Amino acid sequence: MQDALLALQRYWTERGCLVVQPFNTEVGAGTANPATMLRVLGPEPWRVGYVEPSVRPDDARYGENPNRLQTHTQFQVILKPDPGDPQELYLGSLEALGVDVRAHDIRFVEDNWASPALGAWGLGWEVWLDGLEITQFTYFQQAGGLVLDPVSVEITYGIERIVMALQGVAHFKDIVYSDGVSYGEVFGQAEYEMSRYYLDDADVEANKRMFDEYAAEAGRLLDARLPVPAYVQVLKCSHTFNVLDARGAISTTERAKAFGQMRTLTRRAAQLWAERREELGHPLGVVPALPPAAAPTPLPTASAPAALLFEIGVEEMPHLDVTATALWVREALTAKLAATRLGHGEVRGHATPRRIVALVDDVQPAEPDAERTVRGPRASAAFDADGNPTKAGLGFARGQGADVADLVRVDVDGVEHVAVVRTEVGRDAVVVLGEVLAQLVAELRSDKNMRWRDPGLSFSRPVRWLLAKLGEVDVPVAVSSLLGGGTTRVRRTAATPEVAVPSAEGYLEFLAGHGIVADAAERRRRIVEDATGLAASVGGVVDFDGVLDEVTNLVEEPRAILGSFEERYLELPAQILTTVMRKHQRYLPVRAADGSLLPHFVAVANGEVDEELVRAGNEGVLRARYEDAAFFWRADLQVSPERHRTGLVKLTFEERLGSMADRADRIAHVAGALGDLAGLGSADRSTVARAGELAKFDLASQMVVELSSLAGTMAREYAARAGETPAVARALAEMEQPRSAGDAVPESAPGAVLALADRFDLLAGLFAVGANPTGSSDPFGLRRAAGGVVTILRATPELSAVTLTAGLSAAADRITAQGVEVGDGALTDAHEFVVRRYEQQLLDAGHEHRLVQAVLPLADTPAAADATLAELEKRVGDEDFAALTAVLQRARRIVPPGTPAEYDPAALVEPVEVALHEAVVAVGSRSSGRGRDLAGFTTVAAPLVTPVNDFFDGVMVMADDPSVRAARLGLLATVTALAEGVVDWKAL
Amino acid sequence: MQDALLALQRYWTERGCLVVQPFNTEVGAGTANPATMLRVLGPEPWRVGYVEPSVRPDDARYGENPNRLQTHTQFQVILKPDPGDPQELYLGSLEALGVDVRAHDIRFVEDNWASPALGAWGLGWEVWLDGLEITQFTYFQQAGGLVLDPVSVEITYGIERIVMALQGVAHFKDIVYSDGVSYGEVFGQAEYEMSRYYLDDADVEANKRMFDEYAAEAGRLLDARLPVPAYVQVLKCSHTFNVLDARGAISTTERAKAFGQMRTLTRRAAQLWAERREELGHPLGVVPALPPAAAPTPLPTASAPAALLFEIGVEEMPHLDVTATALWVREALTAKLAATRLGHGEVRGHATPRRIVALVDDVQPAEPDAERTVRGPRASAAFDADGNPTKAGLGFARGQGADVADLVRVDVDGVEHVAVVRTEVGRDAVVVLGEVLAQLVAELRSDKNMRWRDPGLSFSRPVRWLLAKLGEVDVPVAVSSLLGGGTTRVRRTAATPEVAVPSAEGYLEFLAGHGIVADAAERRRRIVEDATGLAASVGGVVDFDGVLDEVTNLVEEPRAILGSFEERYLELPAQILTTVMRKHQRYLPVRAADGSLLPHFVAVANGEVDEELVRAGNEGVLRARYEDAAFFWRADLQVSPERHRTGLVKLTFEERLGSMADRADRIAHVAGALGDLAGLGSADRSTVARAGELAKFDLASQMVVELSSLAGTMAREYAARAGETPAVARALAEMEQPRSAGDAVPESAPGAVLALADRFDLLAGLFAVGANPTGSSDPFGLRRAAGGVVTILRATPELSAVTLTAGLSAAADRITAQGVEVGDGALTDAHEFVVRRYEQQLLDAGHEHRLVQAVLPLADTPAAADATLAELEKRVGDEDFAALTAVLQRARRIVPPGTPAEYDPAALVEPVEVALHEAVVAVGSRSSGRGRDLAGFTTVAAPLVTPVNDFFDGVMVMADDPSVRAARLGLLATVTALAEGVVDWKAL
Repeated sequence: MQDALLALQRYWTERGCLVVQPFNTEVGAGTANPATMLRVLGPEPWRVGYVEPSVRPDDARYGENPNRLQTHTQFQVILKPDPGDPQELYLGSLEALGVDVRAHDIRFVEDNWASPALGAWGLGWEVWLDGLEITQFTYFQQAGGLVLDPVSVEITYGIERIVMALQGVAHFKDIVYSDGVSYGEVFGQAEYEMSRYYLDDADVEANKRMFDEYAAEAGRLLDARLPVPAYVQVLKCSHTFNVLDARGAISTTERAKAFGQMRTLTRRAAQLWAERREELGHPLGVVPALPPAAAPTPLPTASAPAALLFEIGVEEMPHLDVTATALWVREALTAKLAATRLGHGEVRGHATPRRIVALVDDVQPAEPDAERTVRGPRASAAFDADGNPTKAGLGFARGQGADVADLVRVDVDGVEHVAVVRTEVGRDAVVVLGEVLAQLVAELRSDKNMRWRDPGLSFSRPVRWLLAKLGEVDVPVAVSSLLGGGTTRVRRTAATPEVAVPSAEGYLEFLAGHGIVADAAERRRRIVEDATGLAASVGGVVDFDGVLDEVTNLVEEPRAILGSFEERYLELPAQILTTVMRKHQRYLPVRAADGSLLPHFVAVANGEVDEELVRAGNEGVLRARYEDAAFFWRADLQVSPERHRTGLVKLTFEERLGSMADRADRIAHVAGALGDLAGLGSADRSTVARAGELAKFDLASQMVVELSSLAGTMAREYAARAGETPAVARALAEMEQPRSAGDAVPESAPGAVLALADRFDLLAGLFAVGANPTGSSDPFGLRRAAGGVVTILRATPELSAVTLTAGLSAAADRITAQGVEVGDGALTDAHEFVVRRYEQQLLDAGHEHRLVQAVLPLADTPAAADATLAELEKRVGDEDFAALTAVLQRARRIVPPGTPAEYDPAALVEPVEVALHEAVVAVGSRSSGRGRDLAGFTTVAAPLVTPVNDFFDGVMVMADDPSVRAARLGLLATVTALAEGVVDWKAL
Repeated sequence: MQDALLALQRYWTERGCLVVQPFNTEVGAGTANPATMLRVLGPEPWRVGYVEPSVRPDDARYGENPNRLQTHTQFQVILKPDPGDPQELYLGSLEALGVDVRAHDIRFVEDNWASPALGAWGLGWEVWLDGLEITQFTYFQQAGGLVLDPVSVEITYGIERIVMALQGVAHFKDIVYSDGVSYGEVFGQAEYEMSRYYLDDADVEANKRMFDEYAAEAGRLLDARLPVPAYVQVLKCSHTFNVLDARGAISTTERAKAFGQMRTLTRRAAQLWAERREELGHPLGVVPALPPAAAPTPLPTASAPAALLFEIGVEEMPHLDVTATALWVREALTAKLAATRLGHGEVRGHATPRRIVALVDDVQPAEPDAERTVRGPRASAAFDADGNPTKAGLGFARGQGADVADLVRVDVDGVEHVAVVRTEVGRDAVVVLGEVLAQLVAELRSDKNMRWRDPGLSFSRPVRWLLAKLGEVDVPVAVSSLLGGGTTRVRRTAATPEVAVPSAEGYLEFLAGHGIVADAAERRRRIVEDATGLAASVGGVVDFDGVLDEVTNLVEEPRAILGSFEERYLELPAQILTTVMRKHQRYLPVRAADGSLLPHFVAVANGEVDEELVRAGNEGVLRARYEDAAFFWRADLQVSPERHRTGLVKLTFEERLGSMADRADRIAHVAGALGDLAGLGSADRSTVARAGELAKFDLASQMVVELSSLAGTMAREYAARAGETPAVARALAEMEQPRSAGDAVPESAPGAVLALADRFDLLAGLFAVGANPTGSSDPFGLRRAAGGVVTILRATPELSAVTLTAGLSAAADRITAQGVEVGDGALTDAHEFVVRRYEQQLLDAGHEHRLVQAVLPLADTPAAADATLAELEKRVGDEDFAALTAVLQRARRIVPPGTPAEYDPAALVEPVEVALHEAVVAVGSRSSGRGRDLAGFTTVAAPLVTPVNDFFDGVMVMADDPSVRAARLGLLATVTALAEGVVDWKAL
């Protein structure tokens, strides 16, 4: 292991890095070391590599967990500025460690990083070695609340992980630390004892006092303008906080307060450091600006129509960006070309993680010439009666650089003007494309964008090269510091990673010749085909659920590999196994014909690798994860659901809303109330009560702490094994459903009621404390919760008594009972928020906007609104219905708002008035029973159509006699009142 | 610089060391890291190397001092067990660092280490590279209060130092840290800011509270039997203490308390760690015992008389041990050979730092045979009258394994006995020498001994080889694990460092052939000759004062090298320059004919070196030290003596006796009192008063903090430059004299009075608080102080009014005034302690023991005692004086103790009685004036001789008549009383 550390130090030293020492106070990660946290600030260059024993009290396991240590060893590299090829440098470092990067499957998998406590975030990847996460690779965008310019590349190696993989050992204690001495022999006792300290023996009150001392000292030092010692004190704060947290001694209020303090102190320290460096004149110098690229002159020219190839080479994009940019590049290029006069054929877009490719057929070598007529004064003003040019005529010609003799006459709206006609010469395609493609790159964006060394660009990940060819001609595209040329990059580990592209024609085949499949559909097809074949070889079928799209966009050169795991793990609940496979490893599970899992999986590697090696590596990773899971499984089963449930007090939910235990209590109460409201039977009520008592207990289980997506699933498994009834176990699982749009909804009434209670509590609570989602920020997942409420209620009409209002109100009652005030405005807002989700669901499902609007007033009971919408859609083409709608609209339009639905019948004297009055009375008496639903009302109200129309035809509503006018308006108001609440008629 | 760290990591890794990380809480040295402090305990092997940024808040200098940093970088190596050749390994590491060990002068200079706070100590060296201390090299003997077995070798490299030397830069900030980046650019800001924190901005109260928190947490964790986290808390204590200390915030009481706490906690942690490792079954195994060496059989034999050569090869001994062991080996070997029958000629002993050589001429090849007579019963009992053996005779013969016929007769004091005569065959010389020399090695000891890998030996430094030859025959000497052979070791960097010795004859010449001068006198002669020649070459003479003996014993192959320094440093007081040269560098100053310093020095290197390189190196070291001194000089001159004086409050003296400021206050008061007592004139009194106000002020100066031996000297220099009178400046300097036996004493009365006051305060104070010296421990230098008192008083008879009693009493008054009780017993003990030093001085000067005893009662005024002793020595052969002494003795012997010196003259009737009475009256009346001094008394009392003798001849003193007896005894008692106090007559 020490050889690994020495190798990394040597490698990075040879690449111009300083080597500094681990920090001499406890830090949770190499990032916290001032050699990163402070040095990434400001304009000075900085290249450093260092070992950092990273202390995470929370990971203390007495040395028993094979993969988890209270102190693990990081090797941290900071490259500032981004050198332009950090991934290649990184791969070199793996080689220095003895990793054969050609044989292994090394991948850059999206992983972004943010530390609110440090005011820091960055975008990047976790690096996988045959499925094992061995490194965090981040483009640091912000630290201490300051935007970083230049951006730093941060590479953090997890040394124990890497060494375990290289040495093929399954427990960190078995790492050969140096000749003949194991990691466990050297550090085992410290691991145990420090775990004891962090988990059991640290004095809580003493550590709380120390936290305050450190924080105060940091504040004083900031006041004294000493950012370095101040930051040291912040680190001590942070470690002390982590100790307290591991001891389970941090209440929610304390957590929020501590984080606030640390964030503020860190920001102040960062700000002050930056200021001090400036005062010191930036002792390490300033990173020079990159010079802008310039296209060569003269530009090449094309002579015949040819295909255009444009490729934007990027570092590995997140998988969603792969799909999005393939679409975008086609649309954007199409639009941009349309703004030129350049003729061209079809535009296609493709993308892999490393390249965005646009292909355009038949691009003309140049724009055609065009004529442009510039209009001048009226002919009568430009020439006098003698036909001689006037001053105005001469002036116009001169202004246009034309001769008077060249002026022509044009007709403008029947008036003759003089004009100059000029020919605009079409530009060469290379010129046009150079501009268009540069704009394209400059406008390239993702949902989450970053900066790197190039100051003029911003995208999901760095753009590293541009390839543009028109037929066989290179199109120089200059964007910021990048100059496009005629080469592309293939596999990084290829003998020649950068290759010249002969021609735009046949580029996909050219790439295919290098193993790269640019077309996502083709990649997907291959994966499906290969994986299916591999699964068949072991008598199984691939379960493509969930990760196929992602896998397709994680590779350029898909290579399906069949792996296996020990059968004994099949004893674990299948969802654990598949969750680990999919979520953590992006493996495809293999099932038997009956749907049960087989002990196999398909991993999709990238490129040519040593299959045996990669298979073994991936199997090892899965084994370690399953071993972990099995460990958690066994450990969790030792603890009853009730004990787990009490553990929820340690889990923070939200500062003012208390712990997760408080929330579970509320859910239990609210579910009971909703069950009563919905009139559940006694069996269901018992189920709700018991499941309520255990609500969310599995959040305290080790399995769910590790694999949070198994919440609910584990509750079901553990509850069932603890002797709870199947109904309770099921309800506990169902209360977490739906997890996302499209997920299953609870099938049992108790499950539905609990799931609703869960989400009503979430909505009412967070709106009550003002934690509504803003913009794209929705940390508590309220959009998902609101969607869930709607989805459940639409799916379970039998719970129609549970309206949104009733549910929110029940939740609010409970929250108030816990001492948090829930304002009316908050509830109204929450209600509106849920209704909006309903509206969105309907629109997303393709319902007509005006019909959706018409039923929204009924959204308090979504199932009812659904029914009405269905009815409406049936009737919307119907003549009678149209007539009824028309008269109701007619009446609504003339009646001023606020007009009472009452009138003096004696004031009505005209026959049409009287007829209408009678019709209203008749309809009124019949609509009281079933008139509230659309079908009923439509039938009942049909007799109104003729009298209303006759009324409008026969009388002036706005009669001069005020009493007559009042009576007529009251009559019409009564008509509209009859229709009120059925649908929103005005929307129709 | 980082390359240096990597090179060391690589080098030690290749030699089986683990590499661990710096500790993640602040430590003051690599020693404190648990990887040393805990791992050296117990029987487990441990080899480790690591970088340790060592935090010393006290060394914070805002980055301004070129050589001093609040955090410097150590590289720490622990080798457990001692590998047997750690020095050779170490030299290899220097080569790995790029140091040409053949060209440079690399030396191991005695330097022992102890940390009472860690309960730790060890013996070893500082390693010099051309005069620059670059490494601490220690055999760790004890840690955490536990004796270490096996012993660990600790090697601590001072990285900044080494790198500065290798790079040839004069300020740490100028170190090239890595390509194009300087140390200052990287760490300058942190150095400044952390200095600010440690020196100015750390919150004192907060840090005090934290100290208590850490200490309490450590205690709790020890109770929980968790030594690792407990020790971490102790480290936090220690750092916090250091911060407080640097802030000047530690009172004496707090310091003592804190040290006590830390010591106790460290010991408990160490003890507990050792226990826990044992409980864990010593995970790293147990260091195996070294097998004892065995001599080969059969042993070789010698055939003719030959010279014996015996060499004990050691690692560099302290210079005092070199001289001592050369003497010891001669004496011890002489004595041991005398206990054998082996004939031999002269025994000689020599020593260099690396070898102890004994040479014996003409050793016989074997012991001669010898006859031994075993005496039996009397012949008359062994044979009956018939000449037949009796039972007794038969039994004796059988018991001796002899035949009755073999019995012979021997005469014992005139009585005839039977006897058996047996021949003892002389043993071969090789056998005898094997035993004798083995004993010699086993008994080898120094004042301060250590252990290393060999369990059976103990000496000042490790014994690494034995060479024993009798002529050309190897004498196998087996001691513990060592087996002597026929080879020796020459310079470590020689092409063949280990060489076979052909013969004992001519060994010194053989060594000389390898450049080694085994004879100290010869080394000394060469140094004097060479240095003198070098000095002459620049027109100077060498000042050999002080360090010649030491230098002679620091090298095996003396090579004097002339170096120079810049003339501008001559502006500094010469004592600063010579102190630095001698004390720090062991250089010989070069003076002009007029005694003034020249800008040159002579360094004595060891062996063949690149003279230019070594000269440049030594000059560089001296320049750095002079630059430091010049910096201190300038800085100190910015501060007035008064301001320095107030700084003494920060310097601890002794817990109960307060700070150095308290002590200086006392000295001022006591000096005033002594000046009054001695009747000084008013000018001298003013001088005492003013110098008293400033007493010891220079202890707060940077120069004296750095070079403590300049205390007094700097006071004089700074006071003179601050405008104090020459008398005051001189008194301030003189008050520190004498610094040691043989040093100059104060010449001015004010200086003497202050010096006395200083020492009386020290003695009275420390005896009052029970801090008397015990055994060899005398931390406050009370022996030296007592010797100083005596020396001063003997040299200044004009201060005779200042008796020991008066001085101690004046000091005690002041101490009592400061609230510390001074018991009578304490003062008596202190007085007795001083008198003993006086006695020792007299005996050391060769005065006769009985005469010394005779004058000791006068020692309260040592000058008077001196005068009396001189008088006594003049008279001691004189007949009249002998007669007087005899009569006084005669009188003293007969008079019972306690007899009053009074009598009733009327009771005396015999003429001799009356004559004596009259003589007594006459002498009594004349002796009252000047009779107290010996000369006077002898003259005055001479007339007593005859009457006393007549009295004894004429009467029976013990007459029957009680009144007569009483009168006669009273008369004799009066005679002795007359002589009382002149000298102690009974001693004569």
